[in-house]
Amino acid sequence: MSKNLILSRLLDFYGELLSEPQREAAELFYNDDLSLSEIAELTGITRQGVRDRLVKAEQLLSELEGKLGLAARFDAIGQDVDCILARAKAIGRDCGVDVSEIIQAAERIGNR
Amino acid sequence: MSKNLILSRLLDFYGELLSEPQREAAELFYNDDLSLSEIAELTGITRQGVRDRLVKAEQLLSELEGKLGLAARFDAIGQDVDCILARAKAIGRDCGVDVSEIIQAAERIGNR
Repeated sequence: MSKNLILSRLLDFYGELLSEPQREAAELFYNDDLSLSEIAELTGITRQGVRDRLVKAEQLLSELEGKLGLAARFDAIGQDVDCILARAKAIGRDCGVDVSEIIQAAERIGNR
Repeated sequence: MSKNLILSRLLDFYGELLSEPQREAAELFYNDDLSLSEIAELTGITRQGVRDRLVKAEQLLSELEGKLGLAARFDAIGQDVDCILARAKAIGRDCGVDVSEIIQAAERIGNR
């Protein structure tokens, strides 16, 4: 996973804990893929100011993941969900058993 | 769920984000069930000092849950896991199908 993709993911988990200016800069950069110059123009601060906000946001997001580890926990849950889905679908296909409740519950977990 | 049980749970999720004195007081109070006086004696501060730390810890924990909602997310995941376990066990029992992989993966999710 690229660094920007990782930070976009951490932003989903922890964005609410950033300051409003940090979150705004991080969302524009990591989610909307704007350049520093474009964000500077949009938010009315200097390019260096945008860079400072991004650096702080990145530090905070990495620190939060180091302490809470939610992205790692949800990654592991996602693998377990894939395992449940694969096995349930195989059982449904090979044994003609209704596995829809299992599949629906696993998909709900995957979306949480 | 009692207020103390809720706070003990939030402490599991967010304890790393409290200051060390706040976390110590909260763990002794919510997890180890010590009284304010016992914590005061153990940590060498006044009873009122312990109370202040607990109030701040409680505010921070509630604020974090309000922003990140992890306890609520994991509660919902727990319900989905129960649903998967119940259906998988029924299929295993009624249809003689090997559902052990599903059960193991669901239990791993429940423990994350």
